[in-house]
Amino acid sequence: MAGTDRLPRGVFVPALTPFSADLAVDRPRFLAHCGALLEQGADGLAVFGTTSEANSLGNAERMQLLDHLIERGVAPGVLMPGTGCCALPDTVALTRHAVAHGVFGVLLLPPFYYKNVSDDGVYASIAEVVHRVADARLRIYLYHIPPMTGVGFPLPVIERLLKTFPGVVVGIKDSSGDWKNTEALLRAFPDFEVFPGSETYLLDALRMGGAGCISATANVNVTATRRLLDAWRSPQADAMQAKLTAVRAAIQKYPLVSANKAILAHAHGDPGWSVVRPPLVPLGKEATAELLRALDALQFPLPAALATA
Amino acid sequence: MAGTDRLPRGVFVPALTPFSADLAVDRPRFLAHCGALLEQGADGLAVFGTTSEANSLGNAERMQLLDHLIERGVAPGVLMPGTGCCALPDTVALTRHAVAHGVFGVLLLPPFYYKNVSDDGVYASIAEVVHRVADARLRIYLYHIPPMTGVGFPLPVIERLLKTFPGVVVGIKDSSGDWKNTEALLRAFPDFEVFPGSETYLLDALRMGGAGCISATANVNVTATRRLLDAWRSPQADAMQAKLTAVRAAIQKYPLVSANKAILAHAHGDPGWSVVRPPLVPLGKEATAELLRALDALQFPLPAALATA
Repeated sequence: MAGTDRLPRGVFVPALTPFSADLAVDRPRFLAHCGALLEQGADGLAVFGTTSEANSLGNAERMQLLDHLIERGVAPGVLMPGTGCCALPDTVALTRHAVAHGVFGVLLLPPFYYKNVSDDGVYASIAEVVHRVADARLRIYLYHIPPMTGVGFPLPVIERLLKTFPGVVVGIKDSSGDWKNTEALLRAFPDFEVFPGSETYLLDALRMGGAGCISATANVNVTATRRLLDAWRSPQADAMQAKLTAVRAAIQKYPLVSANKAILAHAHGDPGWSVVRPPLVPLGKEATAELLRALDALQFPLPAALATA
Repeated sequence: MAGTDRLPRGVFVPALTPFSADLAVDRPRFLAHCGALLEQGADGLAVFGTTSEANSLGNAERMQLLDHLIERGVAPGVLMPGTGCCALPDTVALTRHAVAHGVFGVLLLPPFYYKNVSDDGVYASIAEVVHRVADARLRIYLYHIPPMTGVGFPLPVIERLLKTFPGVVVGIKDSSGDWKNTEALLRAFPDFEVFPGSETYLLDALRMGGAGCISATANVNVTATRRLLDAWRSPQADAMQAKLTAVRAAIQKYPLVSANKAILAHAHGDPGWSVVRPPLVPLGKEATAELLRALDALQFPLPAALATA
């Protein structure tokens, strides 16, 4: 089977971005959250993903927050910041900035405003970024999330990118929610690092040479996710996966960002954690109570705050 | 019938943004194009719309280009720049900048990354912009274009915005392509300026009190569009509409931005006009020839360049 010799890269968490009541980025909460995730088992942080409300942040906010994280001691080598925007100049600026910091890689959305774009157009979007960033340290993970973007990375586009930019385009986060697509990627591209966008598919992916996972719900369940990654060849793996899948299913009944924030607000006794930027809205009281009851029924351990703070 | 006493506001053109071969904004071509449109009958310019590839421009590019246009003599009072981005800080910055210039109004996309957002979330997005811009001169035209954004302005959201922000939220560009929606808007909100996003619906809208139109294809067909606006009560109106509709139908068989640029490239003998930013791709040679033949069969007069240059 293709790629089974590949070593997993790990569990990357698309870290939530906390806001204060006036919707400004809350840096102390963010730093504490990132620290807690790493302490609790995250191999890396895919900051500025969908779950991070990255597309609700301005470019300056994103760059300053990355600077801050690294200044405060988070190793650039564990970071995979999202840098893909609608506009080429923005994507190039964010990518250059991240690469200059020496990050592990960047997670690149395709330009997502225009719909029904051609394969040539998607290819050209990524090729232009590579040419303009022009830095040998650039490592691109494609961010495939058609439910949000309406624009994806079809297999022929990936094939072309891998041929033209070997060692630069190195992996993908597949948030299609469609296992058939993840499976097709794993089969088609043996040397490509494929991260399912949900831990629901973690074990299936690992068994086919998958690289790990990058999942929204790892914000609140990173320890168990990492434990499966470490023990995926053990006899307990299927039971561990079943538990992860059940927790994910309970949370993803609700809008993921607001649900994750509601869980953290409750777990940390910090209602401010539930603030989101529009167009998202906080999870309501009733939905929050219902979600917490469901998690309790699953004997889900609420995530702890940073222990070493 | 609702609103038939309203005077049409006019034909606003979402002016194409020309690029040089290296994909930089081509200011001289842009200025000449905007001048030609006004000379040839445009009542106003909805710069930085979908047809303008605005979401493929960075914020600084957008602000500098607006500055340039106004410095070079285009009256702010004829401008309705698009200022809606995914991120609130970006939308606020662009909107403030435009309002400070004294523009006619701004055309506001909802934040368009997240999908399946609630009515409360869409409402809050616009409300936050109004509160943060905090300028009595702010006039918002909502930009409803679900085929691109996946997020629209449902009637209940508009109703709420009109109640809370009378005189601030004043109109809409309806690019749903769904006449039933335009009709519902015209019936529901008598004092609201409703612009269909295509000249196909111009006459129908005017007869119900519509404000005019804001249409991609007015980039190449503004004179005839404006002529219908001026003569919509005349016996010739239906025949004029039929002609406009046929031309629009011929062009919208192709991706609109690339097709409009291909027509201008041909009409001005200036191949550089066909450059688009990724993810768009230029209209191919064959498609261009086919389109030009179709327009020729309709006796479509190719748009002239700026006469007063």
